Amino acid sequence: MTHLPVDPAMSEPLTSADAMERRLRHIGATRYHSRHPFHHMLHGGKLTKGQVQAWALNRYYYQSSIPIKDAVVLSRFRDRDIRLEWRHRIEDHDGHIGGEGGIERWLKLTDGLGLDRAFVDSGLGILPATRFAVDAYVNFVGVKSPLEAIASSLTELFAPNLHEERIAGMLKHYDFINPSVMTYFQRRLEQAPRDAGFALDFVRQHAQTPEQRQQVCDALTFKTNVLWVQLDALYHAYVSGFPPPGVFRPEGA
Amino acid sequence: MTHLPVDPAMSEPLTSADAMERRLRHIGATRYHSRHPFHHMLHGGKLTKGQVQAWALNRYYYQSSIPIKDAVVLSRFRDRDIRLEWRHRIEDHDGHIGGEGGIERWLKLTDGLGLDRAFVDSGLGILPATRFAVDAYVNFVGVKSPLEAIASSLTELFAPNLHEERIAGMLKHYDFINPSVMTYFQRRLEQAPRDAGFALDFVRQHAQTPEQRQQVCDALTFKTNVLWVQLDALYHAYVSGFPPPGVFRPEGA
Repeated sequence: MTHLPVDPAMSEPLTSADAMERRLRHIGATRYHSRHPFHHMLHGGKLTKGQVQAWALNRYYYQSSIPIKDAVVLSRFRDRDIRLEWRHRIEDHDGHIGGEGGIERWLKLTDGLGLDRAFVDSGLGILPATRFAVDAYVNFVGVKSPLEAIASSLTELFAPNLHEERIAGMLKHYDFINPSVMTYFQRRLEQAPRDAGFALDFVRQHAQTPEQRQQVCDALTFKTNVLWVQLDALYHAYVSGFPPPGVFRPEGA
Repeated sequence: MTHLPVDPAMSEPLTSADAMERRLRHIGATRYHSRHPFHHMLHGGKLTKGQVQAWALNRYYYQSSIPIKDAVVLSRFRDRDIRLEWRHRIEDHDGHIGGEGGIERWLKLTDGLGLDRAFVDSGLGILPATRFAVDAYVNFVGVKSPLEAIASSLTELFAPNLHEERIAGMLKHYDFINPSVMTYFQRRLEQAPRDAGFALDFVRQHAQTPEQRQQVCDALTFKTNVLWVQLDALYHAYVSGFPPPGVFRPEGA
């Protein structure tokens, strides 16, 4: 008697790379945050501007931690080829001197929503659950095996569909959203498939035992939890209406 | 324009130990999880047995991580006297060979609620937010200064009132609760004041600049967030009715 939901698809033995990939795609289909009610509201035009602000503000802490996370991943490998491959992720997010990257593009979104850049960048006002979840991700890639560190990025397999839905839905439904503030997602439509392809090839090649394949699947499940927790916290604070002490309050709320 | 709630009591300069203690007590009065709606429901008899199970199951992950956290704190001090003082916290929770400690007493509560011990102890089925918050606490005491590590335990200043309210409320309102499963809280009524007294004396003595006093206050705020996030997640999953994928589901839910 474990009181846990039973999912028969999770019991196929992980005897091959193909079986592992099937499991990974099943985890994505059942746990990726594209299924979260907050995203349905966000993309369906059901949120107020203040709620969208809260999402963009909190998500900035995630975005701005990604190059830090990727630097930790990079530090785990003595193999220069892998470091070279992984380094472009840091470049994608941080950009180059005089050139914008993903973090800068995210700030265009928060600018467009009327949030002060210094406030966004400070992290003051984000939900504590956002910080705990994101920091858990950065810690994970430092303390787990290099294989698991790479596997935890596999949510990118499922990102392009979500981003397409987001771009279309937000442009359609919100008068405070225009294409110039959505360039982050536009750009990720090209970047994420390349990154996901490398990571999937890597885990297929390097997870050589059922135990290692299970670790890969568990790393993806962990990462889906990192994403899901952030939306649960946003929903509870700004949709259900229970903001914890000391966090961002939209004007008029 | 920061969109943050303003609290004038938080702007008194931290020029003395007394000013710091006033601030600490104000943080407790405004942020301690005794104020959380989930606790009001728990103590007021408003929860189902399944919701109380979910609380006890998740809180077990917190309880069972406390001696690990305290071992990390202990490891930060070269001063043997502090280590000797702190060690009794590990003993309080782990007990002695053949003798029960706080973790064992918590398992009496989960036993009494009809939960399987192996399931509780496995951590399978807990909310991801519980794990992220608790792990953040364990990490905090390892990476922050020893002063902040000790300061983060200061929530114990506010625990006895909460425990008294809990014992009385739960015994009164729930037919599935009896005194024999509430020994954890009964015992903490004696232990927490001693522990809190040591920690408060320590930070009063060792925080000697306004910056250090601010760090002490921030450490307490961090810890109140660790506790609050756990109840927010329980409320969202089991009161609002949005359990995330893969977690404990009470029978009949």
